[in-house]
Amino acid sequence: MTADLSRLSLNTATTKRWTLREAVDGAVRAGLPAVGVWRDRVQEVGLAEAAKIVADAGLRVSSLCRGGFLTAEDDAEATAALDDNRRAIVEAATLGTHELIMVVGGLPEGSRDLVGARRRVADRIGELAPFAAGHGVRLVLEPLHPIFAADRAVLSTLGQALDLAEPFPAEVVGVVVDTYHVWWDPDLQPQIARAGAAGRIASYQVCDWILPLAADPLLSRGHVGDGYIDFPTITRWVAEAGYTGDVEVEIFRESVWDAPGDETVGTLAARYREHVQPYL
Amino acid sequence: MTADLSRLSLNTATTKRWTLREAVDGAVRAGLPAVGVWRDRVQEVGLAEAAKIVADAGLRVSSLCRGGFLTAEDDAEATAALDDNRRAIVEAATLGTHELIMVVGGLPEGSRDLVGARRRVADRIGELAPFAAGHGVRLVLEPLHPIFAADRAVLSTLGQALDLAEPFPAEVVGVVVDTYHVWWDPDLQPQIARAGAAGRIASYQVCDWILPLAADPLLSRGHVGDGYIDFPTITRWVAEAGYTGDVEVEIFRESVWDAPGDETVGTLAARYREHVQPYL
Repeated sequence: MTADLSRLSLNTATTKRWTLREAVDGAVRAGLPAVGVWRDRVQEVGLAEAAKIVADAGLRVSSLCRGGFLTAEDDAEATAALDDNRRAIVEAATLGTHELIMVVGGLPEGSRDLVGARRRVADRIGELAPFAAGHGVRLVLEPLHPIFAADRAVLSTLGQALDLAEPFPAEVVGVVVDTYHVWWDPDLQPQIARAGAAGRIASYQVCDWILPLAADPLLSRGHVGDGYIDFPTITRWVAEAGYTGDVEVEIFRESVWDAPGDETVGTLAARYREHVQPYL
Repeated sequence: MTADLSRLSLNTATTKRWTLREAVDGAVRAGLPAVGVWRDRVQEVGLAEAAKIVADAGLRVSSLCRGGFLTAEDDAEATAALDDNRRAIVEAATLGTHELIMVVGGLPEGSRDLVGARRRVADRIGELAPFAAGHGVRLVLEPLHPIFAADRAVLSTLGQALDLAEPFPAEVVGVVVDTYHVWWDPDLQPQIARAGAAGRIASYQVCDWILPLAADPLLSRGHVGDGYIDFPTITRWVAEAGYTGDVEVEIFRESVWDAPGDETVGTLAARYREHVQPYL
């Protein structure tokens, strides 16, 4: 393993065509010490086998993606969502990761009650927290870019995520700093500092903001360095906040997915060395 | 004029195919007391004639759109931008409106220095403020949705706009609350209250957030009621903040532009009556 990649983690969504085993092997070949794992890749092979694949390769699991979707107004849907989150918590514990990324969900179908949806998220984090704590897993709140406020996550800023996290111990509810989602925030530096001081930065995820947006804006994420984000500055803020954990590269983009996996991993490692690692 | 339309203003961008005279006539036919005017419509007929068209019709000009674009790194570009803003200030004064909407501009070509761009905006607002004050015109800072942070406005939240405005008198630097741009903000209610308490709400602009986004996200604005925004709630917040001015409808959307102008004005008036006016 190259020393300067010692905090770099491959999120399995970045190499979308690879199975979990292929992603783990690809990470090992490139000298990466960790993977961030999506649940679909775990379910493909089964939880026990997934845990074995990662452990046998000697990799860390930097995070499990993802729980959440907690905004339902309907009781049955809400119950189903809570059950699914409990399964995700068990999966995270079994895979040996402390961090379960939570995308909290958008407005329920036909609803415009953003204030109410946000209140339900807070309530349901409260319901899940004891179960997560009992399994040694942290619920990691992910603020999403406001472009997704209607349809994917009513959690829109790091400050809002920290307000939500505040009633809970730092080891039970944390936040992720994902550059794509938060780079624009005029309050970013103080909120990263606040998150670090509270011990709540559970993950630092990097990818770039590319224009023009893809038809599905979710797929506008790109390789670090290809877009508008100032990685040296944001990375310094994260480092100054005391974060010493893994840096995950999570890219959703057709052209990245169409490239051979090893090429994608090579590119992201090179970009990490240039734009991120020197500032950590 | 119907009493309940007494605060409704037609922004000329909403009826894009209409000249200024056509827009003024359309507003009068529909019983609207005001228009928000874009500079291109003024320049088409000349400033003196534009002022006469509006005055002869007995309409208020709720705002002039727009000044701004203050982020240039290059000195010549910056000087040209300041000169253009001074012209816009003169135009606003001549048209008899107090409110000049400012879209501050995105990152300069090739730059990723968001912090620096924001600093230049603050500096240049400071340069323009005395000239604006001398002409009885207010520089109205418009926070744009973070989707536009890279390419159109590094001013992304109402809180950030109010921080920028703070060093200046409320009559010289204000803010606009445009629902499309700010509806997602978890800090929206307190920031609207803060803007109202400071006497800085210069305009309330309404239109809806529609999904899926148009290929050009700028054109995703839609008629009030067609999307995800909770107009009763946000309108109540604006009213509780003490705002008593005009409510402008400003929609950029191909299907709205393709409709006959009178139909568009009829629709926006009906939507205003249903979703906005009762909560003012």
